[in-house]
Amino acid sequence: MAAYKDLSKKELSALKADLEKEFKKVKAKGMKLDMSRGKPSTEQLNLSMEMMDVLTSKSDLVCEEGVDCRNYGVLDGIKEAKQLLADMMEVPKDNIVIFGNSSLNVMYDTIARSMTHGVMGSTPWSKLDKVKFLCPVPGYDRHFAITEYFGIEMINVPMTPTGPDMDIVEKLVCSDPAIKGIWCVPKYSNPQGITYSDETVHRFAKLKPAAEDFRIYWDNAYGIHHLYEDKHDYLIEIFMECKREGHPDMVYKFASTSKISFPGSGIGAIAASDANLADIRKQMRIQTIGHDKLNQLRHARYFGDIHGMVKHMRRHADIMRPKFDTVLQTLETELGGLEIGSWLAPRGGYFISFDAMEGCAKAIVAKAKEAGLVMTDAGATFPYGKDPRDSNIRIAPSYPTLEELKEAAKIFVLSVKLVSIDKLLENM
Amino acid sequence: MAAYKDLSKKELSALKADLEKEFKKVKAKGMKLDMSRGKPSTEQLNLSMEMMDVLTSKSDLVCEEGVDCRNYGVLDGIKEAKQLLADMMEVPKDNIVIFGNSSLNVMYDTIARSMTHGVMGSTPWSKLDKVKFLCPVPGYDRHFAITEYFGIEMINVPMTPTGPDMDIVEKLVCSDPAIKGIWCVPKYSNPQGITYSDETVHRFAKLKPAAEDFRIYWDNAYGIHHLYEDKHDYLIEIFMECKREGHPDMVYKFASTSKISFPGSGIGAIAASDANLADIRKQMRIQTIGHDKLNQLRHARYFGDIHGMVKHMRRHADIMRPKFDTVLQTLETELGGLEIGSWLAPRGGYFISFDAMEGCAKAIVAKAKEAGLVMTDAGATFPYGKDPRDSNIRIAPSYPTLEELKEAAKIFVLSVKLVSIDKLLENM
Repeated sequence: MAAYKDLSKKELSALKADLEKEFKKVKAKGMKLDMSRGKPSTEQLNLSMEMMDVLTSKSDLVCEEGVDCRNYGVLDGIKEAKQLLADMMEVPKDNIVIFGNSSLNVMYDTIARSMTHGVMGSTPWSKLDKVKFLCPVPGYDRHFAITEYFGIEMINVPMTPTGPDMDIVEKLVCSDPAIKGIWCVPKYSNPQGITYSDETVHRFAKLKPAAEDFRIYWDNAYGIHHLYEDKHDYLIEIFMECKREGHPDMVYKFASTSKISFPGSGIGAIAASDANLADIRKQMRIQTIGHDKLNQLRHARYFGDIHGMVKHMRRHADIMRPKFDTVLQTLETELGGLEIGSWLAPRGGYFISFDAMEGCAKAIVAKAKEAGLVMTDAGATFPYGKDPRDSNIRIAPSYPTLEELKEAAKIFVLSVKLVSIDKLLENM
Repeated sequence: MAAYKDLSKKELSALKADLEKEFKKVKAKGMKLDMSRGKPSTEQLNLSMEMMDVLTSKSDLVCEEGVDCRNYGVLDGIKEAKQLLADMMEVPKDNIVIFGNSSLNVMYDTIARSMTHGVMGSTPWSKLDKVKFLCPVPGYDRHFAITEYFGIEMINVPMTPTGPDMDIVEKLVCSDPAIKGIWCVPKYSNPQGITYSDETVHRFAKLKPAAEDFRIYWDNAYGIHHLYEDKHDYLIEIFMECKREGHPDMVYKFASTSKISFPGSGIGAIAASDANLADIRKQMRIQTIGHDKLNQLRHARYFGDIHGMVKHMRRHADIMRPKFDTVLQTLETELGGLEIGSWLAPRGGYFISFDAMEGCAKAIVAKAKEAGLVMTDAGATFPYGKDPRDSNIRIAPSYPTLEELKEAAKIFVLSVKLVSIDKLLENM
């Protein structure tokens, strides 16, 4: 089919009438569909059910270092959980601290601590006139919510197919001492599914920040969340690169098992240099007597080792792959060649990012909702919820069943077509 | 036996020689004993082992409000966990927010939030020149560690047999707007085992603080941790009292199941007014997608209801009671009448507080260590670790076995005697 922009007003109007009939029919079904959040599906949750049987009243609940996991003690994680998450995060075991049930909380704590106590002895950010963060866009709304909550000024940096625009990152980070961090989801990024290229990672590691307390907030949330067995993205391990470049302290890595075992009942961790971890432990010692060691033990014994985890992720992929394929096929079949939107086909992660014609995202999300499909709010992928082009929409295909997803994808493309036609007609 | 102060120099010296022989013998045994922390014993941990079997791969993991506890969702706690902890904390279910694995972390978060965001719209404490907290002494070292970490000035308020000296509390709280809080362990207090009297609670509820963002930090850590079935202390419920006095927002209550189920793998909660909880949820929403619902469900199903928890606590008491009795009997038999120390016999909680002669606490703890007995550091029960009289020692009888405890108590009284004689001789 021809691109919409090449159609006449009459052709567009006729098309619109047809599509509206179709939309009315779909709407009449009164469906309730949700592609708004990166939630694993029930089928995926079932994959980990045997984890519930790992610890029983007959189990020996003493961990490798001889500590009874039922009691107080062990501030920063039991040995076997550290080993598992270290392998998952591709860092040495001693560069890991295990936290509670999610990495979001670890990131929040990291910013909160920097506000009140600075970073490794630097001035607490709350005492500074201005603190800024770089935010590659589109990005993850919950990252932006943390920095907004603490009154940190967020600066958009456009994503490219190889990661954030490093020319801009270098220029800003190296010149402005108020810039204290950058939010990164470096692999299968949220929402685009982009993996940072080797060059991007190298340029990150070579950064010479104007601020001594600048840190790269490397949220490797989807490090082992591949979709295809034969097509993986590869991401260079940044902690070692930073070390090689003489900046071992410049990066905090975050990850959790939320989308591996159970969301909200997993274990989260931070990986960083010895000096960073010493700084973090100073706070932890005040904040807690230790996190849930029984859940750490449960995870370590269930997965056994990183190989067990990798095998487990293949089962997740088997469930996720057809869902991504369904959405991508619908986009391709229904919108291919129409020039009213663009998207990438990711090899992992939880999202597909859709860029509509400028000024159409909000209207598309509203249109889809009319027919019972909830999408992530348009704008959510930008700081302050403001997409300057009103173009980006995040599609989260994981939660609905395959059947629901087919319906949802149909509603979505129909909404895109209708809103785009209106936009084109408006400008004629 | 006569009071040591009435003995002659010669008599004391002779006694000292005998006691030193005894001490040498005990020391030669090379024991390793620990009465330093309020840790449940292995026997107590075993009481909750069946909790490990409550959730299995065959369980329905959907909670009462129909949410799959394995997935994201439910910010502030599942209904059945709220009900259980509400009953435990003696407040309505809607005045509870469930957090992660410990109440210490909840208290830390509460102070941290007040530093960066104030309390219900007040000026963030980090923007103020001076923030002060009242600290009833002796008290809990980890409370003091939190306020110290945030640079909050701590003011000692002496404990009396009915709670903190309320004349001082009223005078300070009502006149100084820099005073933002007071740390309280109102029932079976740490370390003295004192329960605040009705009058004390009433006077708390009637406080008219100079600071609008003053809060009572009511850490009811031992609310149902009785030692005797027939002798309970009763504590008036403060939230309702504050409400009646027209100050519903003046109190935060904290508690957890750490010393009910498993320390570090329990669930923590805060109870407060609707307005306080709304303020707290604003932060929580940024900090986390929700805490570990599977562990909440595990607790709710294991205990069933508050009656199940109360029955469970009787089994804890059966284990704790002989330990407390052993220590108290040894103190009575060995130190009674000597006038070299005083103590209270608590009806619950985890500690016995011992007041040595002025200037002796550090030396007693050091002496005990010589013979292989680790006690809580002298001074730990005071802000900044500074006991102005160097007198208070916290005894934690829960962790050692009864056999170990007998030895530990012997070493302790021997150390008290030896150090006290030295002190008396010094001043002769």
